[in-house]
Amino acid sequence: MIVSELADILGAKLEGDPSLQVKRVNSLEDAKAGDVSFLSSASYFSKIEKCQATAVLVPKNFNGNTTCAILRVENPDRSFGEAALCFYKPPPLPMLGVHESAIVACDVKLGKDVSIGANSVIESNVVLGDRVVIGPNSVIGHGAVINKDSYIYAGVIIREFVEIGSRVIIHSGSVIGSDGFGYAIEKDGSRWKIPQIGIVQIEDDVEIGSNVSIDRARFGKSIVGRGTKIDNLVQIAHNVVIGKDCVICGQVGIAGSANIGSNTILAGQVGVGGHVKIGKGVIANAKSGLVTNIDDNTHVMGMPAVDRKVYQKAYFGMLKLSNIKNKLKILEKRIEDLINK
Amino acid sequence: MIVSELADILGAKLEGDPSLQVKRVNSLEDAKAGDVSFLSSASYFSKIEKCQATAVLVPKNFNGNTTCAILRVENPDRSFGEAALCFYKPPPLPMLGVHESAIVACDVKLGKDVSIGANSVIESNVVLGDRVVIGPNSVIGHGAVINKDSYIYAGVIIREFVEIGSRVIIHSGSVIGSDGFGYAIEKDGSRWKIPQIGIVQIEDDVEIGSNVSIDRARFGKSIVGRGTKIDNLVQIAHNVVIGKDCVICGQVGIAGSANIGSNTILAGQVGVGGHVKIGKGVIANAKSGLVTNIDDNTHVMGMPAVDRKVYQKAYFGMLKLSNIKNKLKILEKRIEDLINK
Amino acid sequence: MIVSELADILGAKLEGDPSLQVKRVNSLEDAKAGDVSFLSSASYFSKIEKCQATAVLVPKNFNGNTTCAILRVENPDRSFGEAALCFYKPPPLPMLGVHESAIVACDVKLGKDVSIGANSVIESNVVLGDRVVIGPNSVIGHGAVINKDSYIYAGVIIREFVEIGSRVIIHSGSVIGSDGFGYAIEKDGSRWKIPQIGIVQIEDDVEIGSNVSIDRARFGKSIVGRGTKIDNLVQIAHNVVIGKDCVICGQVGIAGSANIGSNTILAGQVGVGGHVKIGKGVIANAKSGLVTNIDDNTHVMGMPAVDRKVYQKAYFGMLKLSNIKNKLKILEKRIEDLINK
Repeated sequence: MIVSELADILGAKLEGDPSLQVKRVNSLEDAKAGDVSFLSSASYFSKIEKCQATAVLVPKNFNGNTTCAILRVENPDRSFGEAALCFYKPPPLPMLGVHESAIVACDVKLGKDVSIGANSVIESNVVLGDRVVIGPNSVIGHGAVINKDSYIYAGVIIREFVEIGSRVIIHSGSVIGSDGFGYAIEKDGSRWKIPQIGIVQIEDDVEIGSNVSIDRARFGKSIVGRGTKIDNLVQIAHNVVIGKDCVICGQVGIAGSANIGSNTILAGQVGVGGHVKIGKGVIANAKSGLVTNIDDNTHVMGMPAVDRKVYQKAYFGMLKLSNIKNKLKILEKRIEDLINK
Repeated sequence: MIVSELADILGAKLEGDPSLQVKRVNSLEDAKAGDVSFLSSASYFSKIEKCQATAVLVPKNFNGNTTCAILRVENPDRSFGEAALCFYKPPPLPMLGVHESAIVACDVKLGKDVSIGANSVIESNVVLGDRVVIGPNSVIGHGAVINKDSYIYAGVIIREFVEIGSRVIIHSGSVIGSDGFGYAIEKDGSRWKIPQIGIVQIEDDVEIGSNVSIDRARFGKSIVGRGTKIDNLVQIAHNVVIGKDCVICGQVGIAGSANIGSNTILAGQVGVGGHVKIGKGVIANAKSGLVTNIDDNTHVMGMPAVDRKVYQKAYFGMLKLSNIKNKLKILEKRIEDLINK
Repeated sequence: MIVSELADILGAKLEGDPSLQVKRVNSLEDAKAGDVSFLSSASYFSKIEKCQATAVLVPKNFNGNTTCAILRVENPDRSFGEAALCFYKPPPLPMLGVHESAIVACDVKLGKDVSIGANSVIESNVVLGDRVVIGPNSVIGHGAVINKDSYIYAGVIIREFVEIGSRVIIHSGSVIGSDGFGYAIEKDGSRWKIPQIGIVQIEDDVEIGSNVSIDRARFGKSIVGRGTKIDNLVQIAHNVVIGKDCVICGQVGIAGSANIGSNTILAGQVGVGGHVKIGKGVIANAKSGLVTNIDDNTHVMGMPAVDRKVYQKAYFGMLKLSNIKNKLKILEKRIEDLINK
């Protein structure tokens, strides 16, 4: 492909030789002749000077120095993704229809152009919308509903009655609708399992990573809101409600009945306590423990989580605690001296 | 159903109109006419005043104000679970027998009324007790034993020789008996895999959540004691011994050869160090790191974990460290002034 | 078996009665007559005095007191593993060939003596080297390559184009090559999924625990270096590069594009931030958060992680913060008194 063709595909404004050959995408640091790279933010402007790529996608306001051909675009992050697809030979599409080794109950309702992979199991009363893909070795439980254009990868387990929206992606090894973790304590101290008879509702455009666990509600629904993206190995307990367009990073754990507002970002390994209410637009730094309610649009850190700046100042202060101790000793000595005078 | 019928089923003492219709369970906040709700502890007494439910389960000593019909019971948490089942249409029971697509070795011993789901694999020498259920797409390894009335959900992997007690529940995606993480370091710095030839023993009445990993012992047994409940995405390493009736919350990680006493509660994302001994009746707050032995009946927090109150006082003190610095500056100034006088 | 036979197998120097019968391995604490135990480091020298084992493996420089027969070896940890195998009746080896229930694409290339387990799915263009074992209910995606002598346990999902080296072990429930977690933010605030078209490359002699997630690169490769060992429930994001002979303990999470030097040890539940560079030979204590670059051969702790000793001193100082406050109060009082004089 030549650069001018790529510019057409991406709707980019080209500056440089339109006939240059490009054949691969690469990072600014690793790019060589024939590669297309990209500059996502102004903070990398300096990196582009040494870049060996043939062409670089840049934001419209780019004014740095470079010997590469330049492709000005609205959103280099997205356009670079589109460029990558131009050079990618994808695996074959899943075959349409039901693989002969899949076990599909006779009353399942299948939309148009559904694909059900080898050795998958679709239990009774399941409804799959148009163009739904179920990968190999997945299990869709009784009465579950998966709406159109959703893609369920290999080895996913979806339990009974779970509701999945449209254009949802669920990666391998994830379990949607396992029982919530709830027991009533008996007089003898043993635990009686509280029936977990609610469901999980995954709204449209949600993506769920690999090896995620989302528990069904004790009653009612555990909900993941439209457009929310969930990374790998995340734990979402029963009756959790997550708003729209949230970002839930790897290994986050959210305890029962917590409520997360829309547009909130929980960084890796964050924990959210049971019944806690997290506002909209909250950012929680990695490893924070959110065990009390958190206001809208705040940025928190620590365990228990507090304002990020307060935490950081206190933490780095703590690391210098011996300075304070030393100063105290000096003061004690000086006062001693004064008194003795 | 009318309220008096529900009272009979639950063994509850009814106060209010016995002919009221009820058709659903719901929370105190969301309940509407036709709903049954519950009040589990005195701290919610105020919430019941505005509650719109038709009937509410309350503890025997309840003396709050409400317009709802009242059902007095010993244990509202448990009775509410029982009430929920009255209004629930469950999925069909697993079919008895071996699904035609399951691969079952010829020498497997099956008890009465066993159910083996579609595409499951039961290796040689396995023993399944009466009424054991193996969900679809699960694998039970050579020589494993699962005792009566245990329920293994879809997509569970149980490795060779693992022993599972009676009435055990294991949720989807969990792996019981993967190799422990142990290597002998060679002179050239490389690692030689130490054979992991022990087993995992899961005692009676244990429940294990989804996507849990429990490693087999290097030799001997990794043990989960009777009645212990394990939430999702928990890591239990080789040779760990967990006592009876413990509660191990989501994403807890327990390193090799740790020993956890009975009736201990580890909250979400707690870590326990290798070879550490945790007492009986310990409570560890979320995200704590238990890297030294912990005494019976203590309540700990922090990393490394210490007495919870000590940690909390110190942590909130740390957040106000700048106060101390300011006071120090003032003192320094005052002493300076005194000396200069 | 008698002790002298065991000594021959292990190449050990025997001190004691060569005709003693041994029939099991056990720990120093639990060993009884007939057991073989081992002493891995000098710090356990005292434990051996009370040990009831018939024979004990000890390092060559052992000079403690014991009534047990002694087997002097170079590396007791390794020799004990070899001893354990002498008394172990292993499960049957996986059957050679393709199980009749496996679904194997017609263009798959199989080496010599490959084993493909029941209900596994091998997609088109896959290459499996000599003696590769694929356990039951696993899925190997289009174009993936697995080199010789690698062992993939039951219920593993390997996505398209992933490359696995020789002698690699992957435990059940792990997912290799799920999509990286990356989105371009659109003007309306919604997220556009960035194609994840790179691969995962697992080098030779790597072991990967159960329920691990390793994401494919956005483009290029996510890499796990030769000899690195990964424990259970670990999250490795897109474009992460891990060096050789690292130890990545349970529930560690490594964010996108992080780079981990060789011979580095990340203890349980450590988190590594995105784009962070961790040096060679680093040790990070459990639960640390490595959010800035870390120098070679340092030992770190805390969140954010700093020098381990600095953290520990500061943390234990923090726990005694009230002492500082009390001293301050006393000083204030004394100064007050001085001024008033």
